[in-house]
Amino acid sequence: MVKKTEAELDTLATPTDEMQGSLKALAEAVARETAKDAGEDSDLPELNTPEQIEDFALQDDYALNPQYIELVIDAADRNDGMRLRELLDALHPADVADLMGFLSEDYREQVIPWIPADALADILSELDEGIREEVVETLRPVDLAEVLQELDSDDAAAVFEDMEADQQKAVLAAMDPEDREAMVTSLAFEEETAGRLMQREVVAAPDFWDVGHTIDHMRAHAADLPELFFDVYVISPTHKPIGGLPVSLLMRSPRDVKLSAIMEPVTEIEVGMDQEEIAYIFEKYHLISAPVVDAGGRLVGQITVDDIVNIIQEENREDILALAGVSDDEGRDSTVFDVVRSRLPWLCVNLLTAFMASSLISVFSGEIEKLVALAVLMPMVASIGGNSGTQALTVSVRALSSRELTTANALRTVWRELRVGWFNGAVIAAILGVVAGVVFSSPMLGITIALAVMINLTAAALAGTLVPLTLSKLDRDPAAASPIFVTMVTDCVGFFSFLGLAAIILL
Amino acid sequence: MVKKTEAELDTLATPTDEMQGSLKALAEAVARETAKDAGEDSDLPELNTPEQIEDFALQDDYALNPQYIELVIDAADRNDGMRLRELLDALHPADVADLMGFLSEDYREQVIPWIPADALADILSELDEGIREEVVETLRPVDLAEVLQELDSDDAAAVFEDMEADQQKAVLAAMDPEDREAMVTSLAFEEETAGRLMQREVVAAPDFWDVGHTIDHMRAHAADLPELFFDVYVISPTHKPIGGLPVSLLMRSPRDVKLSAIMEPVTEIEVGMDQEEIAYIFEKYHLISAPVVDAGGRLVGQITVDDIVNIIQEENREDILALAGVSDDEGRDSTVFDVVRSRLPWLCVNLLTAFMASSLISVFSGEIEKLVALAVLMPMVASIGGNSGTQALTVSVRALSSRELTTANALRTVWRELRVGWFNGAVIAAILGVVAGVVFSSPMLGITIALAVMINLTAAALAGTLVPLTLSKLDRDPAAASPIFVTMVTDCVGFFSFLGLAAIILL
Repeated sequence: MVKKTEAELDTLATPTDEMQGSLKALAEAVARETAKDAGEDSDLPELNTPEQIEDFALQDDYALNPQYIELVIDAADRNDGMRLRELLDALHPADVADLMGFLSEDYREQVIPWIPADALADILSELDEGIREEVVETLRPVDLAEVLQELDSDDAAAVFEDMEADQQKAVLAAMDPEDREAMVTSLAFEEETAGRLMQREVVAAPDFWDVGHTIDHMRAHAADLPELFFDVYVISPTHKPIGGLPVSLLMRSPRDVKLSAIMEPVTEIEVGMDQEEIAYIFEKYHLISAPVVDAGGRLVGQITVDDIVNIIQEENREDILALAGVSDDEGRDSTVFDVVRSRLPWLCVNLLTAFMASSLISVFSGEIEKLVALAVLMPMVASIGGNSGTQALTVSVRALSSRELTTANALRTVWRELRVGWFNGAVIAAILGVVAGVVFSSPMLGITIALAVMINLTAAALAGTLVPLTLSKLDRDPAAASPIFVTMVTDCVGFFSFLGLAAIILL
Repeated sequence: MVKKTEAELDTLATPTDEMQGSLKALAEAVARETAKDAGEDSDLPELNTPEQIEDFALQDDYALNPQYIELVIDAADRNDGMRLRELLDALHPADVADLMGFLSEDYREQVIPWIPADALADILSELDEGIREEVVETLRPVDLAEVLQELDSDDAAAVFEDMEADQQKAVLAAMDPEDREAMVTSLAFEEETAGRLMQREVVAAPDFWDVGHTIDHMRAHAADLPELFFDVYVISPTHKPIGGLPVSLLMRSPRDVKLSAIMEPVTEIEVGMDQEEIAYIFEKYHLISAPVVDAGGRLVGQITVDDIVNIIQEENREDILALAGVSDDEGRDSTVFDVVRSRLPWLCVNLLTAFMASSLISVFSGEIEKLVALAVLMPMVASIGGNSGTQALTVSVRALSSRELTTANALRTVWRELRVGWFNGAVIAAILGVVAGVVFSSPMLGITIALAVMINLTAAALAGTLVPLTLSKLDRDPAAASPIFVTMVTDCVGFFSFLGLAAIILL
């Protein structure tokens, strides 16, 4: 925080739109002076217009300004509802949702009632799950029903599915029959499938229409169009999508051209398709939207790229956390217990594999007693092996999820990893062998550790590729289960090869 | 591979469009029978129409079918250019690019000349970098210039920047003056910034126009419009973007409404902004496109979400690989040496930290000689600590990159991690303490290892959060450097606390 002098503060406190707001500003300034702890926020500029507030709230990198968060907390402490509303009103719903994640539960409870009602729908669909549940609990079913009806069907379903059964019933009862029907249909699909992710609102035109007729029709029925759409789907008489037209192409084309003459091929998504696969298709073919079809191939909705961006982040997040042994999604609002539950299981499995490695070591207790240098050096062999294994494993998991590693190039990949392991192994073995040999004045000890490193890096290369490949073949998530196996292999092979070779060569 | 009986094969070999293609199919079938290794691809169905080929080439999960790749290799072995062209022609450019990644360099050289010229532009921008260089080298400057002119300016720049200096000069000389100018301007911006990523083609309208005039104008100048666009930017007389209109909103609005009355606020991107930040903004605000402005705030281009999807994947990939100690991007086409170069440096650093940990152990050689159980148990303390540290570290790195962890909640996060560490530590320490105490019939040894685990998990929690936070404050990439520090801390603290406590308590 940059501390400002009194003179600078004065300048900052003078609003540019003084004519309109000076009285109000003065009254607020006085109220704030009176209420705040001495000097606590004396380095915060006055913020009166929404633009001033938004500029202040967002830093250069679009992260929320900690000082803005302090302002909110300060207003909550003073029970200054008007100021809270002012501060929240100025931000994009996504930023308000972000703010909630930075507040403690107590402050959230104080702030939530001041969220403007019309912004609530948008904010709800942006909130972290745990916080959303909190907010939803405070709303009356009638208000909730209204909020849900304002959202696209996919966002509405996402909010709805997190509610308690009682509340769901009450909300459904309060909805319009049509929206209720839509909600029930949407929820009939499994989570994380196209059916749940799609929005039912689509724009479709029969293939025999021409451009002019389509534009005229759309403009004449403007009120029925979705708020935002990117493609007009061309459908057959049986309601199957046979092509698509970006709206911009419609704009560029002469009126008398038939849709079927200029439509582009579309990639259909089946209602049952998993979100990870959908994301892969969107990414590969650079799609902006795609039609969703039912089992009979009929158009039932669409998925748009803005939802896909979130899914890609979600899937990546799951992968990266799974690789580190974090099983559940942890957010800012997770409790200590949530976090423990997501991490302790893996630590326990790790404890088991560590027991195995230790049992191996204990077999060689006699050797270690005779030559304590073995105890000093053995963790290095395991550590280098573990890191090599993690490298190979992570690259393999990424390649599998981007379909760059398949049975078509599996053998070639394993062979490359083996050669990489041998090369890296040779370098590390040489360094480690020489250092160990010199430090312990025992060339044979150097040779022993060098050989063990080569063996362990070979094991790391094999485990790092074959374990994820096998898991993927068995339809298990390679990111979640591979690290355990690979670490187990490199620990055990590391200790066993080093101590075993030492028993043969040295003792 | 599912083996098919002769009868099934016959059925498959009968094309549905027999009338048109039977003679050709017969000739091809004979040619294939003659050339192929006995029985090698006898389980591949006949594939004649582009639809048949595409259906066969893509599996249910949209990964390339290994059998399709075999077909291509087979055709290349037989030097059957017509068949190669047929096989490649049927696929989306993104799939052809994908295919290239599965072929070895020799096969690529054979296949590339058969890529249809009109598809080449699209395929080029999809290819993995290394392969793209190979392909580009085989093209004449005139052809390359034409290909580049067909691409959007961002894709063209991406292809151009990978070319050799000589070739760049020749290609520039072969380009139209206007396109050459655009290319040079684009390349003047730094890599991975908005200036380089943006496409210069935008649709903009002055704020005083109304909807009707805008639509009429766009339709009258259809030939000048970009091939695909999602938003019309509303600009001030000084060419600054003051709002935006999704094309679908233009469609929905009455003709006599002024653009300024219905335009939506836009999030401006400065030409110098880093791609990671741009991706964050697109994700947070669910943008489809955003205007790019120069230092003077004037509209100079736009960035669209399809490019952002790739960037998000790229940044995630970088993070996940960096956490595993893989520094460079590795692709299917990387050589063994590429891979070694990307991984060996981190293994060497790891060797250094392992040396440090080993030196610590050697300080306690005397203790280990007296009680060899210490050598058996010490890797467990280090291993559990290392895994806890990795968990905390990975969660912190993710939270930092999604701006969910900032100075505003840093203290709270560290405090939560500490409590998680103590809770997990207590559970693991209890198990490990009891087991060690019983196995080695020494309750004091159990207490020693339990205490050491608690100390090391405290260290892991602190290092796992404070190291990435500090690196991020120093504007360093926390994903790349944190693992080294955190592992060093948990290794050293693990060995030192266990052996040190043992020296005090047991010996």
